[in-house]
Amino acid sequence: MNIPRSSYPRIVIIGGGFGGISLAQKLSKKEVQVVLLDKNNYHTFQPLLYQVSTGGLEPDSIAYPLRKVLIGYDNFFFRLAEVNEILAEKKVLNTSIGQVSYDYLVVATGSETNFFGNKELEKNAMAMKSIPQSLNLRSLILENFEQALLTDDYHERDALMNFVIVGGGPTGVELAGALAEIKKGILPKDYPDLDTRRAQINLVQGGDRLLDAMSDNASEKSENFLEKLGVQVWKNTRVTGYNGKTVTTKTDLTFETATLVWAAGVMGATIKGLDAKELLAGGNRLNVNQFNQVEGYPEIFAIGDIACMESKDYPRGHPMMAQPAIQQGKHLGENLVRLVDGKSLKPFSYRDKGSMATVGRNKAVVDLKKIKFQGVFAWFVWMFVHLFFLIGFRNRVVVFVNWVYNYVRFDREARLIIRPFKRNYSQFKD
Amino acid sequence: MNIPRSSYPRIVIIGGGFGGISLAQKLSKKEVQVVLLDKNNYHTFQPLLYQVSTGGLEPDSIAYPLRKVLIGYDNFFFRLAEVNEILAEKKVLNTSIGQVSYDYLVVATGSETNFFGNKELEKNAMAMKSIPQSLNLRSLILENFEQALLTDDYHERDALMNFVIVGGGPTGVELAGALAEIKKGILPKDYPDLDTRRAQINLVQGGDRLLDAMSDNASEKSENFLEKLGVQVWKNTRVTGYNGKTVTTKTDLTFETATLVWAAGVMGATIKGLDAKELLAGGNRLNVNQFNQVEGYPEIFAIGDIACMESKDYPRGHPMMAQPAIQQGKHLGENLVRLVDGKSLKPFSYRDKGSMATVGRNKAVVDLKKIKFQGVFAWFVWMFVHLFFLIGFRNRVVVFVNWVYNYVRFDREARLIIRPFKRNYSQFKD
Repeated sequence: MNIPRSSYPRIVIIGGGFGGISLAQKLSKKEVQVVLLDKNNYHTFQPLLYQVSTGGLEPDSIAYPLRKVLIGYDNFFFRLAEVNEILAEKKVLNTSIGQVSYDYLVVATGSETNFFGNKELEKNAMAMKSIPQSLNLRSLILENFEQALLTDDYHERDALMNFVIVGGGPTGVELAGALAEIKKGILPKDYPDLDTRRAQINLVQGGDRLLDAMSDNASEKSENFLEKLGVQVWKNTRVTGYNGKTVTTKTDLTFETATLVWAAGVMGATIKGLDAKELLAGGNRLNVNQFNQVEGYPEIFAIGDIACMESKDYPRGHPMMAQPAIQQGKHLGENLVRLVDGKSLKPFSYRDKGSMATVGRNKAVVDLKKIKFQGVFAWFVWMFVHLFFLIGFRNRVVVFVNWVYNYVRFDREARLIIRPFKRNYSQFKD
Repeated sequence: MNIPRSSYPRIVIIGGGFGGISLAQKLSKKEVQVVLLDKNNYHTFQPLLYQVSTGGLEPDSIAYPLRKVLIGYDNFFFRLAEVNEILAEKKVLNTSIGQVSYDYLVVATGSETNFFGNKELEKNAMAMKSIPQSLNLRSLILENFEQALLTDDYHERDALMNFVIVGGGPTGVELAGALAEIKKGILPKDYPDLDTRRAQINLVQGGDRLLDAMSDNASEKSENFLEKLGVQVWKNTRVTGYNGKTVTTKTDLTFETATLVWAAGVMGATIKGLDAKELLAGGNRLNVNQFNQVEGYPEIFAIGDIACMESKDYPRGHPMMAQPAIQQGKHLGENLVRLVDGKSLKPFSYRDKGSMATVGRNKAVVDLKKIKFQGVFAWFVWMFVHLFFLIGFRNRVVVFVNWVYNYVRFDREARLIIRPFKRNYSQFKD
């Protein structure tokens, strides 16, 4: 691997998510060499993926080229590579483009969809953790309606227009809300020759409330908002399987659907090589100390979703969201500079800035430390915060333009099947 | 096929390009039923595809949902379908979604890339006639540079950074200019560890001048612009083959390259079923009379690229560009209403509004009827005209925002490999 060695220590970062790029930016122009590896050449702004799936935003406006992250800093090297294994004793990574050596390693690989070992679900459900996955879902949603137009079979048509979303966290709630708005505002105009009133959006939650990481206020209000939009919310319901046609649950309840979206769990995206047995905390996350150091590996750090830092306030680690990743990335950046300078590390402490979710037009819920609010103002706060954290000035402007357009026109123009998703529809014909 | 029959005559339009949608819009709220068939659910603004390939624009902003074309007009039906055959005697189409009957049929299928029967070229060259093709090219261009970073082989690296564009029409000229600007403005910043000065852009033209449908002024000036940008222009050079590695020409000249873009010819996208032997004029186009009626078929019309209407000024048919398609679509719309009303048809006459091409920043050439000009003003005219003809208000704003950003920042942020294009690079390792 021809990355030139400099006299500075080399810090290799695996993953260009919120954690990885926050860290990289902190290291710019410091006396270190920064090598960023990612399997994509872009950063994905995951909180808005559901808007790509529902035609509200173009994919390119929530992506940002990773080569631009430290543009102009000549001791920064990006490589498009998948990391297969960490050889900690040799301080080397095995990657899809050969071996890469490091002085310090930061694992910032984020998380991936957790199907809890259910192979059938993994095969038939749609996930929404990456841009290609979101585009597949966008295609499938639109294809279902095109297909519904063609069939004379009543049951098949209903199954094609039935959307089952499993998981009542922010992703599930936001996607369900967006689909409900499409049903109301776009389907009747786009498909005048289809009885789109029969379209259904079902949101299935295992626990007894939605948004269970947020306040009771937020849970109740979001459920209330969803019901107003016509979403059917099923709480205390565990999905057990989906054969591409029928969703089964722990009870008698079943759904006939062409589309199951799985937003019911994530787990750390681990890499082979670390002594996983002792280190993997719940949810496949790497146990780290208060300096984000992976226990047992003084040169290896982990930040963001993949890292599990136990603390008094967060005995099971910080929530797997953007904020802990950003804060850990920045903090570790400062700590790594200290480490290189021979100074002692400072412990990380998380500043909870609150959390929020949007259900639809003028409908959002916001929990801040001291105040919790819901409705129109919350919705504006949600938009402002998302624009603020979106990477790239151009992206912000394009997203803003789209939101204004969508708001004023009650529209979502990116309802394009640019690459069809190949679903075998024949299974609905009994 | 369950498209409800109305008491109005049914006009089926195959293809939602410039011609098809101009026609459909003219038929809105007239006493006809309009059925639009297309293999995609969106209109593609083809003149800007090269900007998608070169990361200047997102794909979604040059696409427009076809269901929106006649939104609110309840005798309009869109179906996502590929038409396989015209059964003219029965007035029926065989399509991928079953049979569709018509009273009047309008073939507006446009054109496709013409490899002139060279299977090797067809297999190995990149075309740029659709959004997925343009995205494949975007991925490949970026992948080539990522790959160039990894190799120690001098020849392989040069081949990866060598771009050969065949065809000196507007598409070839515009793509070559955009790549030259990327070489100058983006590559040195994105790939500081690669000697991107060795990147080459070769534009190969069979004839003795570029933009041969335009004035001599435009040809000379565009060549001049390209040379200033560092593009190597090869005139009077016919490409004979490309095995994925070496481009051969009629002379001794060869190019070693990982990327050949074929922009050297288009031909009508014909459909089986019409008596093709007598009807296909040069370039696979359907011969039509001055009412756009396909000769021998009183109920079948053709407009745009697929139609060849011979006239005194255009003995070989109108140029295969947006303007004739738009004008024929509008004109045929009026004629079909006349036909339904039992009135006589009016002959079509083409108003040449001129033609233009852009080479790069502040560099374009414009031929109007009375005046021909080149340079900065031409470039602004080019942008204004393209924004004007782009379908959709949101698209115009998003494209405008991107252009302003790209202009001010000398940047192209959509350099994203969202779906990798699978090129077999091992062939470059001898």
